[in-house]
Amino acid sequence: MAKVADPYLKVDPWAITEEGFDPERNRTSESIFSLGNEYMGVRGYADEGYSGDSLPGSYFNGLNEQMEVGNHYKGIIRSLRYMVNAVDWLHTRISVDGEPLDLAHSRIEKYTRRLDFRTGTYTREFIWLLADGKKLKLRFTRLVSMTTSHLGMQEISFTALNFTGKVDICTGLDFGMVHEEHGQSMWKEQRSGEEGAVTAIMASTLTTGNQLFSGFVLKSSQALHTELVEDDRYIGRQFSLMLAEGEPASFTKLVVNVTDSDASRAADRLWTKGMELAAAADRLEEEEVLADQAAYWSGIWATSDIRIEGDPENQQGIRFCIFQLYQTYHGDHPGYNIGAKGLTGEAYRGLAFWDTESYCLPFYLFNNPKAARSLLEFRYKTLPQALQRGKDVDCAGAFYPIATIDGTESCDLWQHSNLQLHVGTAVSYGIWHYVNNTGDREFLYSKGAEMLIQISRFYASRGQWGQRSGEYGYFGVMGPDEFQLMVNNNCYINLMAQKLFEYTLETVALMKAEAPEEYAAVIADTALREEELADWDHKRTHMKIPFDPGSGIYEEHDGFFDMPHLDIHSIPVSEFPLYANWSYDRLYRYDMIKQPDVLMFLFLYNGQFSREAKLANYEYYEPRCIHESSLSPSIHSILASELGKPEEAYRFFEFATRLDLDNYNRNTREGLHTTSIAAAWMNIVYGFGGMRSDGDCLSFRPVLPKQWTAYSFQVMCRGVLLGITVNAESVCFRAVNGGSVEVLIYDQRVTVDEAGIELPLAEGMLA
Amino acid sequence: MAKVADPYLKVDPWAITEEGFDPERNRTSESIFSLGNEYMGVRGYADEGYSGDSLPGSYFNGLNEQMEVGNHYKGIIRSLRYMVNAVDWLHTRISVDGEPLDLAHSRIEKYTRRLDFRTGTYTREFIWLLADGKKLKLRFTRLVSMTTSHLGMQEISFTALNFTGKVDICTGLDFGMVHEEHGQSMWKEQRSGEEGAVTAIMASTLTTGNQLFSGFVLKSSQALHTELVEDDRYIGRQFSLMLAEGEPASFTKLVVNVTDSDASRAADRLWTKGMELAAAADRLEEEEVLADQAAYWSGIWATSDIRIEGDPENQQGIRFCIFQLYQTYHGDHPGYNIGAKGLTGEAYRGLAFWDTESYCLPFYLFNNPKAARSLLEFRYKTLPQALQRGKDVDCAGAFYPIATIDGTESCDLWQHSNLQLHVGTAVSYGIWHYVNNTGDREFLYSKGAEMLIQISRFYASRGQWGQRSGEYGYFGVMGPDEFQLMVNNNCYINLMAQKLFEYTLETVALMKAEAPEEYAAVIADTALREEELADWDHKRTHMKIPFDPGSGIYEEHDGFFDMPHLDIHSIPVSEFPLYANWSYDRLYRYDMIKQPDVLMFLFLYNGQFSREAKLANYEYYEPRCIHESSLSPSIHSILASELGKPEEAYRFFEFATRLDLDNYNRNTREGLHTTSIAAAWMNIVYGFGGMRSDGDCLSFRPVLPKQWTAYSFQVMCRGVLLGITVNAESVCFRAVNGGSVEVLIYDQRVTVDEAGIELPLAEGMLA
Repeated sequence: MAKVADPYLKVDPWAITEEGFDPERNRTSESIFSLGNEYMGVRGYADEGYSGDSLPGSYFNGLNEQMEVGNHYKGIIRSLRYMVNAVDWLHTRISVDGEPLDLAHSRIEKYTRRLDFRTGTYTREFIWLLADGKKLKLRFTRLVSMTTSHLGMQEISFTALNFTGKVDICTGLDFGMVHEEHGQSMWKEQRSGEEGAVTAIMASTLTTGNQLFSGFVLKSSQALHTELVEDDRYIGRQFSLMLAEGEPASFTKLVVNVTDSDASRAADRLWTKGMELAAAADRLEEEEVLADQAAYWSGIWATSDIRIEGDPENQQGIRFCIFQLYQTYHGDHPGYNIGAKGLTGEAYRGLAFWDTESYCLPFYLFNNPKAARSLLEFRYKTLPQALQRGKDVDCAGAFYPIATIDGTESCDLWQHSNLQLHVGTAVSYGIWHYVNNTGDREFLYSKGAEMLIQISRFYASRGQWGQRSGEYGYFGVMGPDEFQLMVNNNCYINLMAQKLFEYTLETVALMKAEAPEEYAAVIADTALREEELADWDHKRTHMKIPFDPGSGIYEEHDGFFDMPHLDIHSIPVSEFPLYANWSYDRLYRYDMIKQPDVLMFLFLYNGQFSREAKLANYEYYEPRCIHESSLSPSIHSILASELGKPEEAYRFFEFATRLDLDNYNRNTREGLHTTSIAAAWMNIVYGFGGMRSDGDCLSFRPVLPKQWTAYSFQVMCRGVLLGITVNAESVCFRAVNGGSVEVLIYDQRVTVDEAGIELPLAEGMLA
Repeated sequence: MAKVADPYLKVDPWAITEEGFDPERNRTSESIFSLGNEYMGVRGYADEGYSGDSLPGSYFNGLNEQMEVGNHYKGIIRSLRYMVNAVDWLHTRISVDGEPLDLAHSRIEKYTRRLDFRTGTYTREFIWLLADGKKLKLRFTRLVSMTTSHLGMQEISFTALNFTGKVDICTGLDFGMVHEEHGQSMWKEQRSGEEGAVTAIMASTLTTGNQLFSGFVLKSSQALHTELVEDDRYIGRQFSLMLAEGEPASFTKLVVNVTDSDASRAADRLWTKGMELAAAADRLEEEEVLADQAAYWSGIWATSDIRIEGDPENQQGIRFCIFQLYQTYHGDHPGYNIGAKGLTGEAYRGLAFWDTESYCLPFYLFNNPKAARSLLEFRYKTLPQALQRGKDVDCAGAFYPIATIDGTESCDLWQHSNLQLHVGTAVSYGIWHYVNNTGDREFLYSKGAEMLIQISRFYASRGQWGQRSGEYGYFGVMGPDEFQLMVNNNCYINLMAQKLFEYTLETVALMKAEAPEEYAAVIADTALREEELADWDHKRTHMKIPFDPGSGIYEEHDGFFDMPHLDIHSIPVSEFPLYANWSYDRLYRYDMIKQPDVLMFLFLYNGQFSREAKLANYEYYEPRCIHESSLSPSIHSILASELGKPEEAYRFFEFATRLDLDNYNRNTREGLHTTSIAAAWMNIVYGFGGMRSDGDCLSFRPVLPKQWTAYSFQVMCRGVLLGITVNAESVCFRAVNGGSVEVLIYDQRVTVDEAGIELPLAEGMLA
């Protein structure tokens, strides 16, 4: 894997701190110091502007632009949607005696920035050494409210250290933010102006007409004499703060951002709504906003914290992951999904992949089941687009896109968007996983079943019968392992399709028996015919699962065992990443795999495979995997833990929590690896905690890595918050807030209640 | 195949005639009435301009422009070259009393146009009915000289039918021709002016700096008082011709076009050269030019004519094919290749494919061996580009491009340009085929061997060892059958690679024994090592040839026999062409094939396969082939003839000679199917004539289709022009111009001399 840490940030259990300003690392830090609240996200760029290398990015879930892609063939997409860089609502320009502040040119000292997991704020401070010898201390604080989606807050405080005078400030809202891929702003101004205390601007995206209102009010202990400043796509206010030596002076900007992705709605509607919300923000006190934010995070840590003793780096790392996961998504908006980089950068164009259901869903499912349901609702909301996409590729039913922001397929590489079918089964697995662990039949009957039926239809029309084998399967596909480009009978796809059909048939039967009204409704909505059920059953029972009984190894796809062998350790480190250094076609003709494929279903349906099967396949596939997906190592770590390979397990875990903090992939500058962050959580809970959630109740087989003295985590299980603590002697399970729940611990069925249960750490589990 | 003729043009053994002007068919006719001389080509567009639907195209071999293509991955091309629409040297504007001539608006009658195979001219005439009742008869004649590459001629004659007056003319050279894909001219003017009788202009292409000089002189029986007209990228002369009622008046424009694709050379050099050639043209008489042209064609027909008795449509069709093949290429310029549409349109961007060696070479080899050698010289000249391309895809040796105009890969679909390897073996087969039939060892030793070694190197580095099979082969490839997109061990590719290694090893051994100097030179030039020869021999002998001994059927690639079956006759006619009507990915997951793949090598190495093998494979693959390549039916027809299936043979032949004349594919408007035209020749000579050229001498097994009463054709065989006549009773072979040659006729070895030999048509050969 050839991953090497680039440690830089200060280790601290509850914060990320950078000391000193390093222009080379600025973009990386901008990603790490991102704030977000699911509704909006903002990178940790300089409020005051910076003429050096920077990506000032401000993103909103649900706002997207469209671009054409030049393709001629039917069924290949002709346009795609991407997350668009939006308003810079932190835009502030600062000068003293005409000397502008810009870290690319200004002399500064004592620079620090800090992201605080308990207050949910990002602060930055330094001393500015002016040309004429004046010293001005600045402190920038910002937050994006976790309790009030539309609200952002910025406070800038100034302390003149050796003079008395004034600082000139212009602060406002800038829609001129450059979208990096296109080298221009993708916005046109619709309206701007002031009403009462509120200064506001509204703009819409160039092609999709998505609308965004942004308005602010200013507060200060000083009476501010401000002047309106207007420019193209910009509105702001200009004023001065009086500075007395040694006495801090500050102003606070409360910003309200409101989106409307429906281009057909009149701009006035949004303007009025935005103005109302901004006026309400004007009634808020800064302390109140800060206190709300801290209270919110206090609640989160009470339920979702993971403690690791004896390993401060991973302690910080996993808290950073949990913090960023909540910032990216917490399920208040069922129409949103999680982009590969969350709301922290423009790489991957803000698109969501199968990562959502395969890697992120478990975190939400066991911390905040409402958020898990919300994620699945995204797929329900975008079912019409998936049905249309199915038609586009000459199939029936719902073909969920491999990459999307609004439900339409937005991957412009046909080999991925047309050949990768596995989002559909990730969704069906997600439904099953969610319902199985929450018992939420209401969701299953009202929405899940309809999705299952339409996904099954797709899989029943896309598959074909092998002429020789007489078995059913999928031809011309790319499985999760993207190093096998166009293959037949990918074992993962076939097996997942089999499970899909099985669960759909079960669900339909269950509804028929238990919920006749909902059953009638879904049959009517989908025009489901009895023959289809028979067809799915037939295909399910005749599904080809490439398997070699002699070795017990599942063959990744037809012919994989004959693929030329490559010793992946023989590849020079300088050739990684292979995507950048190998001819594109060369990637695809070895038994080398990019990420787990067979191992993935052995993990997902863990309980259905014997230890021997898992061991044989792990030992066959692991040495062939180069992990050129940041999602890959965690799955290997989890299986290695299960298979009694603690050193391997820890080696694969090693960079999971600190992938971005230590910039292992050297591309954190583009944004955080948000979905990999979710895999880090899985790595601890499913890996070391040994949790499995594919059975009739949760089961655990905790191990203690020798690098740790103890650790604890909590999972929400059917309404009960289960606390698990593991140390060298014992494992303790307790229903933290009362209630009781049945679980398996080391295969032993126990009921855990508030009193808790303590068992010795099983033999061999001290790694 | 669902191909239906659209008969329209007059049937005539020696010409193509269109009567009446049909704007709907204008582009199609422009393609059919194209003129060319290998150096340049010009579509049959209206000299006088036409504001209706038209593609005024003027193309030059060797002139090309570059465009960027947006690809990110290593080994995928980032730019491509294409044939660029160049100067309109026929540009003429005509008006009478201020009324301009434009067939989109003008009233005309008695419109005819005619392409004459014996004079090599294109003429067009009609009567123009002016608004004020005047009637003016016009006759346009043009030619592109087959004997003087740079020379074009245009004559326009006017006869006032009911008035006396004058016609106003402006004729010149226009570099403003729009390149259709880009909607603009790709030229910038370098220089223009007049010197003596010559009016000239020079321009260069925007990105590649290819240069083109165009100059003209005017002649007329009337004294012309001309005035210079200059505009951006245009130069011309304006004058009037006096018209007396009933008396033709005319002018002749002799044009010299000279290209220089070397951007580094000073413009002055080309200007001076062009001016010299134009001054020489001024000394020519029109009659002389016409007579030279007719004499040239007379010589061609004496050696290359095919006569078909009892089938005037195919008689006309095959002569059109032969005429166009000579126009496209006759080997005067070794640096040129044959684009898929020749010089008749912009589709396929003027690029040459494997069609050159696989489909066109035989025509030249047996009509004009010098031209065959010239075609192979193109590959020798572009060996450096192929070596670079090999490096680009992480391989050694020469990777010849799937589509090219200048030797660089210019196909912007990576799945073709990176996965289709079969141009290299088409080249090696072409070398073998050429040398085998001409005995030209000089070419083999001086150029062929170097290509063979470098192609072998590529094939030895691109291939891999199957992990299960232990055999060598090619993974991740697309064979000739483009409906199987990315497969392993394509049988055609593997077998052709085996043959390539075999021939290279033989050649090296032969040179070592026979030509030690040339041997030393090629070893030095290529730095060939003994181990490489051993490696090639090892790979050759361990090459995987997928074959089912039970049925005798070669498997097109690993797993083909398991590909889902589709009865191609069940596809509704409305869904053709499938490329346009099926989702792109759907094309690739059936046992449906686009064009011969296994059958192709059974044809190329015909003598090495038994009749039983050919029959079994033909009967397996033919029903699976949809012929969505215009190159496909002829190969099937040839094999059907051999296998005693005369009706099938004729059915596949049916549209071969008239593919464009009857616009079977409904896309002749984009240009002629030039390389398919070559396949029509093969269809008659190899199909009905039963010729085979892969043995130690030519062999023939003629059949007579029941649709014909007799036919004859000629082939050049080791310096002897062999005439073959077939009728219902007998087959006659004669060395037309003396000499003698050994051939096989119905498996009987005979020596044919000027006296000739007559044998009865073999039993069963009267189809």
